Amino acid sequence: MIRDGYGRSSTSRSVRVSSAHTTPAATAPLTPATLVGDELQLVERRLAELLRSREERLTDIASYLIGSGGKRVRPAVTLLVFRACGGTNLPDIVDVAVALELIHSASLLHDDIIDGNAVRRGRDSARHKYGVAETLVTGDFLFSRAFQICGRFDERLIHWAAEACIALTEGEIMQGRFRHNPQVTYGDYKEIIARKTASLFEVGARTAAYLARADDAVVDAIARCGKHVGLTFQMVDDLLDVTGAEATLGKPIGVDVREGNPALPIVLALTEDDEVRRLFAQAELSEAEVNAMLVRLRRPSIIEPGHRLAVEHATIAREALHALSDSPYREYLLGLIDQLVERVS
Amino acid sequence: MIRDGYGRSSTSRSVRVSSAHTTPAATAPLTPATLVGDELQLVERRLAELLRSREERLTDIASYLIGSGGKRVRPAVTLLVFRACGGTNLPDIVDVAVALELIHSASLLHDDIIDGNAVRRGRDSARHKYGVAETLVTGDFLFSRAFQICGRFDERLIHWAAEACIALTEGEIMQGRFRHNPQVTYGDYKEIIARKTASLFEVGARTAAYLARADDAVVDAIARCGKHVGLTFQMVDDLLDVTGAEATLGKPIGVDVREGNPALPIVLALTEDDEVRRLFAQAELSEAEVNAMLVRLRRPSIIEPGHRLAVEHATIAREALHALSDSPYREYLLGLIDQLVERVS
Repeated sequence: MIRDGYGRSSTSRSVRVSSAHTTPAATAPLTPATLVGDELQLVERRLAELLRSREERLTDIASYLIGSGGKRVRPAVTLLVFRACGGTNLPDIVDVAVALELIHSASLLHDDIIDGNAVRRGRDSARHKYGVAETLVTGDFLFSRAFQICGRFDERLIHWAAEACIALTEGEIMQGRFRHNPQVTYGDYKEIIARKTASLFEVGARTAAYLARADDAVVDAIARCGKHVGLTFQMVDDLLDVTGAEATLGKPIGVDVREGNPALPIVLALTEDDEVRRLFAQAELSEAEVNAMLVRLRRPSIIEPGHRLAVEHATIAREALHALSDSPYREYLLGLIDQLVERVS
Repeated sequence: MIRDGYGRSSTSRSVRVSSAHTTPAATAPLTPATLVGDELQLVERRLAELLRSREERLTDIASYLIGSGGKRVRPAVTLLVFRACGGTNLPDIVDVAVALELIHSASLLHDDIIDGNAVRRGRDSARHKYGVAETLVTGDFLFSRAFQICGRFDERLIHWAAEACIALTEGEIMQGRFRHNPQVTYGDYKEIIARKTASLFEVGARTAAYLARADDAVVDAIARCGKHVGLTFQMVDDLLDVTGAEATLGKPIGVDVREGNPALPIVLALTEDDEVRRLFAQAELSEAEVNAMLVRLRRPSIIEPGHRLAVEHATIAREALHALSDSPYREYLLGLIDQLVERVS
């Protein structure tokens, strides 16, 4: 797990939402492209603008990552929430969506260094292609750009964004503490993914509602929704790393097992399977051991409760959305939450 | 060169200004400890507060670097400029000084990864002690903390700080372009150090004058002063890497020669010494070649013009300070500028 957040590459192809890859149908079905397509285009344009640097290399490396078909899940969710809350002032929310995507991208670049990832989004990682030094600096560049954009917002908003950035770093360190550590509990796991994955979803949702001038109670409900969408997203990602097919996912499976990450199926299996405990504690696994562990993790006694936990969080996210009145945006967000959990079942 | 800025470890022991290491004399000589000692203590206290994290490891690594006797040159200069401009509101300027020190520290941690430094400030670098992953994440943590503090300031100030952070990254990449590259000109060199070292000095000075409510023209003059102090500082550092004694500097010399960095003496020698050109272009140098190059770089025909260039920038910095009326703070800053260039002569 945890290839997203402080840099996780999600397995989810089915929730690709970037308008660049979606053709609006004549019947205008509910998709981000029909609902917030113009806004997403503004996001793309602003992103391209902000990747420009006096040093071409920074632009190249940043574009290599950001232009490589990231799903823009975070900007889309942020924009949909903003519209669902009745927001109208586009430049503000576009900048917020862009800032969050920049922070997310910076964390992906740094994560490639931390994990030594050779592959990201189906091709060479930036680290593999450009080396550690330039990849690290490009991450810092993107982070600085996000910081620059945030300058025009009020203190509260900057504080939320900075808190989310701090949570990313604290999540990364916490995950490190529990790597190969069979003492990890489900509570620890939830705290790690809350910091590493859910924090940016939460701040995106909170900020969108706030900028749409929603009431404080609504802002809090929407932030809760964002947080639980993030938790669901990560739990599903963890389950797919065990149950998914490489062909469908477009990336290797079993990454968490190989890296000793405290991912959902592993954390659940640790309480009942001594062999999983033994293998998880090992610093290195042979391919045979990886496969043996995957077989154990694919048991219904692990996957089914794992899925139920993801559904629980999806339900909390859905319920929080009822703080808003009905709209096509809200309807789409509800559908998106359903899609998230349907990926595993 | 360029171990400072995007993470340079300065050779200057003589300008140590941290109040923690200075005993105020009964006659109260002009030192930061007597002039802005209380302010520097507030900076230390606030730094300690901001290094706290939910993850002890982040606090440990950050404290390891920041507590290891950094010279606090940037906070001291920032505080002195603020007082020299008649500023009185301490919490603001303390937070700015702290934010800049956090950004500087983040860049030192990342620089240790980029350059593979095993030693920093006379002991194991954080990277050497804690490894790449945790050192990188701690840099991001410190950067996020700086971002968090800046939230309470107005847009213009955040914009300046973000621009300085962007300049650090662009300077790092630009330096990389000219490493081992004999095409590098003096103009390129100045641009690199303006971005990598002078940018944080400039933004510190600009912000201090701005927060002290100085006139726009004074703010610009003070920013110019900060920039040229930074340029001087770096040029002197580059000269000392060639002419200094390891025992006095407390660190190895010849680092720029070994790493192929476009440092001042090298850049000056390139125009007149074919052997320096040849050696600088080589990816690796033997110890005999390093020594041969150092001998060539120590010639008066290199060091003297190098020193004159540093003095030129020091003079610009001094002149800019005359935008302010006389005060002990201004007097000390003028003395500090003199000290900078006296280190080489």
